Amino acid sequence: MMEEKKIPYKIYLEESELPKQWYNVRADMKNKPAPLLNPGTKEPLKFEDLTPIFCEELVKQELDDTTAYFDIPDEILDYYKTYRPSPLCRAYNLEKALGTPAKIYYKFEGNNTSGSHKLNSAIAQAYYAKKQGLKGVTTETGAGQWGTALSMACAHFDLDCKVYMVKVSYEQKPFRREVMRTYGASVTPSPSETTNVGKKILEEHPGTTGSLGCAISEAVEAATTREGYRYVLGSVLNQVLLHQSVIGLETKTALDKYGVTPDIIIGCAGGGSNLGGLISPFMGEKLRGEKDYEIIAVEPASCPSFTRGRFAYDFCDTGKVCPLAKMYTLGSGFIPSPNHAGGLRYHGMSSILSQLYHDGLMKAVSVEQTEVFEAAERFARVEGILPAPESAHAIRVAIDEALKCRETGEEKTIVFGLTGTGYFDMVAYEKYNNGEMSDYIPTDEDLQPGFDSLPPM
Amino acid sequence: MMEEKKIPYKIYLEESELPKQWYNVRADMKNKPAPLLNPGTKEPLKFEDLTPIFCEELVKQELDDTTAYFDIPDEILDYYKTYRPSPLCRAYNLEKALGTPAKIYYKFEGNNTSGSHKLNSAIAQAYYAKKQGLKGVTTETGAGQWGTALSMACAHFDLDCKVYMVKVSYEQKPFRREVMRTYGASVTPSPSETTNVGKKILEEHPGTTGSLGCAISEAVEAATTREGYRYVLGSVLNQVLLHQSVIGLETKTALDKYGVTPDIIIGCAGGGSNLGGLISPFMGEKLRGEKDYEIIAVEPASCPSFTRGRFAYDFCDTGKVCPLAKMYTLGSGFIPSPNHAGGLRYHGMSSILSQLYHDGLMKAVSVEQTEVFEAAERFARVEGILPAPESAHAIRVAIDEALKCRETGEEKTIVFGLTGTGYFDMVAYEKYNNGEMSDYIPTDEDLQPGFDSLPPM
Repeated sequence: MMEEKKIPYKIYLEESELPKQWYNVRADMKNKPAPLLNPGTKEPLKFEDLTPIFCEELVKQELDDTTAYFDIPDEILDYYKTYRPSPLCRAYNLEKALGTPAKIYYKFEGNNTSGSHKLNSAIAQAYYAKKQGLKGVTTETGAGQWGTALSMACAHFDLDCKVYMVKVSYEQKPFRREVMRTYGASVTPSPSETTNVGKKILEEHPGTTGSLGCAISEAVEAATTREGYRYVLGSVLNQVLLHQSVIGLETKTALDKYGVTPDIIIGCAGGGSNLGGLISPFMGEKLRGEKDYEIIAVEPASCPSFTRGRFAYDFCDTGKVCPLAKMYTLGSGFIPSPNHAGGLRYHGMSSILSQLYHDGLMKAVSVEQTEVFEAAERFARVEGILPAPESAHAIRVAIDEALKCRETGEEKTIVFGLTGTGYFDMVAYEKYNNGEMSDYIPTDEDLQPGFDSLPPM
Repeated sequence: MMEEKKIPYKIYLEESELPKQWYNVRADMKNKPAPLLNPGTKEPLKFEDLTPIFCEELVKQELDDTTAYFDIPDEILDYYKTYRPSPLCRAYNLEKALGTPAKIYYKFEGNNTSGSHKLNSAIAQAYYAKKQGLKGVTTETGAGQWGTALSMACAHFDLDCKVYMVKVSYEQKPFRREVMRTYGASVTPSPSETTNVGKKILEEHPGTTGSLGCAISEAVEAATTREGYRYVLGSVLNQVLLHQSVIGLETKTALDKYGVTPDIIIGCAGGGSNLGGLISPFMGEKLRGEKDYEIIAVEPASCPSFTRGRFAYDFCDTGKVCPLAKMYTLGSGFIPSPNHAGGLRYHGMSSILSQLYHDGLMKAVSVEQTEVFEAAERFARVEGILPAPESAHAIRVAIDEALKCRETGEEKTIVFGLTGTGYFDMVAYEKYNNGEMSDYIPTDEDLQPGFDSLPPM
């Protein structure tokens, strides 16, 4: 109890304590994530197959499942120092409000202009693109966090940045577009008429509000049909989880400093970038048999890839121009119901996390959006921070776990990832404030068209 | 030079280094700021004259010009710990981009959900309201930062919060309203039909986009006509500058830790809360003859109270229901031109800062908004943080001073206040991005109606 008193509301590491290497959890996995396949030949993709799409150094990181640590280049470290360390926060006020004996911590990644953890990988990917001498990069963005992060990173390295933004988010978040434009990016609502794959999707699904899968197809086409451009992605890929390990490494350093060991680690999961990054060093200990942790992925009930998807090879995009990845997936043809607000709308899940989940090393739960916004508002009022709807999925389950502790009297230590802020999600909050937010759990029939789009293997 | 290398990008104080007292710069002023006057009798207002409007403890702070330090109550200190210390940032990337030998630091107050420094005083004022057993408070807000901060503070202490929001901001910033509502506040565009003074202003100026002065009148009426309510204000008042001294005290502690002494200290000035807070301990040293600093207030050319106003007794509000304060003022009837984007639109200036300016202890410059947004965009791209338009006024002059150093070769140390983020100001950024932003310097004739509204003394 004496020691508890000494833990500040916010733990900031010193600049000298920041991680100097990323941690690659694949190195400690016995069952490695399955390789990416060529959709035509069904053969594993090699370095030279991927370099027309991705930057060379990033392909190396993508394919390397044995090197445990990668040095973070100085240029990236210097940029990290402009907005990191992110604080590890002790949720004293939330604990008090819940009347729980649980000790709740959250790693808050929202204190940068992109408003989320996405910047951790954006700056790395932009750096390698610049190092390769490229003119620019293309990408997709859903809720807008990744696109904003990438536009900031490209401004730093003076790269052109073309963003395809999922149409529903483009319309719900006009201000996101302006932030990206302020950083010099061009932003196109997806699906669009600017690509062949976009035109095709619009013909087949007129009036579609878009999906991350569509936007990926368009961004890949835009990159591969232009000289000096490559495509970059903000989640799902192994390289992204590698960069995002900085979240977990900082979290672990901060907890170790105060002698705290978590019992439960919770993160929201769309493509897996935040969750994979947060849990990586803890999962490493678990894989090496050094420690055990309860790890929980939280996903929206309206896009339930872990909890209702299939563990299968699938296209990473709707237009089926991308490689096949083995993952928990709802099928590349899946589009979330229109009432779903914001991010966490990707049809698949990181191959790394999919394998770990398949091997029973982590759990997953799905939650409905009204209860998510209820948790978001409660958290905002007691902890001060207005969370992104995505992050609020983790808050919901952290609160639920803390309330279980109130019942049992257990003093569990709960750590969750607060990936970002909700300042650009006020249309969704307005719906909730006006009592107009709805829930929808897809039926098995709703999910079937997605599964029908799975490639025959 | 060796020592320079050791300065991190961001200096975070330890929780134990946070200030435990506010500093009252009036205690060190030889020429005290003139007292508030009763507009009828022109007599100085006493404690009992002010307590029907303000909380008792806050009136004590307002009137006390001799006590140098006030203890910060534990409840407020605990709340400060949830979002403070704010980082003191070394602008290495900006220095490099400008090619200046100047060393640039900024105190960044935007890393909280209110998005600005306003929370420092909001939580204090809400605390004293709660301590007095009130049901709630009323206030006005311009750009929306103060209203958001107060709604957060009221949520923390379970107080009702009624906000009158300047109409032009209400329309330009619908999402601000939703943040306030998420924290449980009610928000009314001002001028409104909900108060007598609002009705009167609407009759006299139909179609007005509102002003801070109007909104103050409405909020004061709403407080004084309700049982258990008081009015609170986010700037101008002595009590607010007292609370905001936490900015300057943290800044000074951080600089002292690294042996750095600023040559120039720069802040934007609307009502004076940020500037007054930032400079207070430095001004204290200057007043006591211990050190000298060049201190620069930056205001918009479209609302130039320091640079073109009169040093006179004036009403604090448009409706003339408030006390008279002696200050640099454009007259309570002044309304900025409609092209002016966002905050820094108050007709007057803190009495403390007005007296210091009158006594030659600080300078003031005015800048036009297009050059302000140019500085904002440049800063965002190199330093990562998207600034509030208000804060960008200080950035503009910090850049100008750094460029002067490039000419002269002087290695001056420049510190400026980065009061907040621009995430809710994207309508203004959009205008700038589209090349649609305009400048307008009021003519002497434009200013005359404001001066005509000055009370006869």
